[in-house]
Amino acid sequence: MGKNFSDFFLSSECMIRMASGWFYLSCLLLGSLGSMCILFTIYWMQYWRGGFAWNGSIYMFNWHPVLMVAGMVVFYGGASLVYRLPQSWVGPRLPWKLLHAALHLIAFILTVVGLVAVFTFHNHGRIANLYSLHSWLGITAVFLFACQWCLGFAVFLLPWASMWLRSLLKPIHVFFGAAILSLSIASVISGINEKLFFSLKNTTRPYNSLPSEAVFANSTGMLVVAFGLLVLYILLASSWKRPEPGILTDRQPLLHDGE
Amino acid sequence: MGKNFSDFFLSSECMIRMASGWFYLSCLLLGSLGSMCILFTIYWMQYWRGGFAWNGSIYMFNWHPVLMVAGMVVFYGGASLVYRLPQSWVGPRLPWKLLHAALHLIAFILTVVGLVAVFTFHNHGRIANLYSLHSWLGITAVFLFACQWCLGFAVFLLPWASMWLRSLLKPIHVFFGAAILSLSIASVISGINEKLFFSLKNTTRPYNSLPSEAVFANSTGMLVVAFGLLVLYILLASSWKRPEPGILTDRQPLLHDGE
Repeated sequence: MGKNFSDFFLSSECMIRMASGWFYLSCLLLGSLGSMCILFTIYWMQYWRGGFAWNGSIYMFNWHPVLMVAGMVVFYGGASLVYRLPQSWVGPRLPWKLLHAALHLIAFILTVVGLVAVFTFHNHGRIANLYSLHSWLGITAVFLFACQWCLGFAVFLLPWASMWLRSLLKPIHVFFGAAILSLSIASVISGINEKLFFSLKNTTRPYNSLPSEAVFANSTGMLVVAFGLLVLYILLASSWKRPEPGILTDRQPLLHDGE
Repeated sequence: MGKNFSDFFLSSECMIRMASGWFYLSCLLLGSLGSMCILFTIYWMQYWRGGFAWNGSIYMFNWHPVLMVAGMVVFYGGASLVYRLPQSWVGPRLPWKLLHAALHLIAFILTVVGLVAVFTFHNHGRIANLYSLHSWLGITAVFLFACQWCLGFAVFLLPWASMWLRSLLKPIHVFFGAAILSLSIASVISGINEKLFFSLKNTTRPYNSLPSEAVFANSTGMLVVAFGLLVLYILLASSWKRPEPGILTDRQPLLHDGE
């Protein structure tokens, strides 16, 4: 029993240390990419599109791309990866669940403010809402995000759901988490594309002549894609997953007993 | 040994039968969705955009959306799921590898013809190539698809790669397979959005008044997203994976010995 315990303690320590190095390197890359996505979108709106305001004008619209990239992609992506932190592998799950839910709530609030910005701008300028495929897909992604958050809160955070229900819904929760991020990325790409066609028509240097704004905004879109793929890689394909019951978690009481 | 063998034989038979029912139901849904994606795109181009030709005109462009949806989404998605067929779980892998590679080759040929259609139309009409974010993302997806096919062929189909290299590259191959499909879907969404803004400007019923063409093409885009998510679900999240060595495949010689 003692040998089993020390074997387990050594192997879990070793696993965590081995995973930690690469994980933090990926986090560094992820943090840099995520910051660049937000900063590039802010710079695009500030430098080429006249900056920000909250008055129903086109400058109010400019909050929309910034807040959607920040909320639906960067904060959402970061929040998804909480359980990939090697520290979350052992010990009680509740603090990590609370962090996961809280970060997603911040992402959702940013998203809702981003939607308020575009709807207010449209209503103020008597522009139709929700006609483009970009908007159809985007609103679907936000709706699924809201459902996912509420269902996740009810099943995984509140204490009433049975273990059977939790283990049934967990892979579906993880899959829809990744699916919503994919939909968000598709919405961001179509949104940047659409915005450039709107902004760069009737100018001396239209979109098809690739002015510096177009190169910059296209590159921002490609950065968003790179960020999203890195999140999906860490989420789905990497070995940085909390080991399944039977490897580390089932033995947790043993670890706690020995401590 | 005999008991082990019969246990294994019964359990693998049972697993395959249990998985088969739901799998074929999902295949039916997938086939219907995939066919609808292609047929809806053809109908959009035929009914609202004047049909097809191969002469450098706008009617040659009309092959582009049809062939990209068929190649990069529907055939690509179907080809990705070959190893999820329960029949592929036991027996030699080579026929399934050949089928996987051949279907992806068909997808790639459709894609290349789809690219020829748009480049020829652009060059004929002196329209710039590769300026929009749609085109940047689309060409990245096609480039990654070509790399993925060649690397997959060299490592998994030719006999020279070591088992170590194969098992190292397999999760990366699966991840990039899914990632390329996600990029394709984002490209298709931005492409449909872009095409509708081009086609429905300067008309009595522009895109923002949601004429029937816009509703139809937006719905086609949402169908493509639904198809893509179903493929990704079956590929990544379902239990229809060929069991890892040690569950079925390691014991295959036993099965063959007993037959």
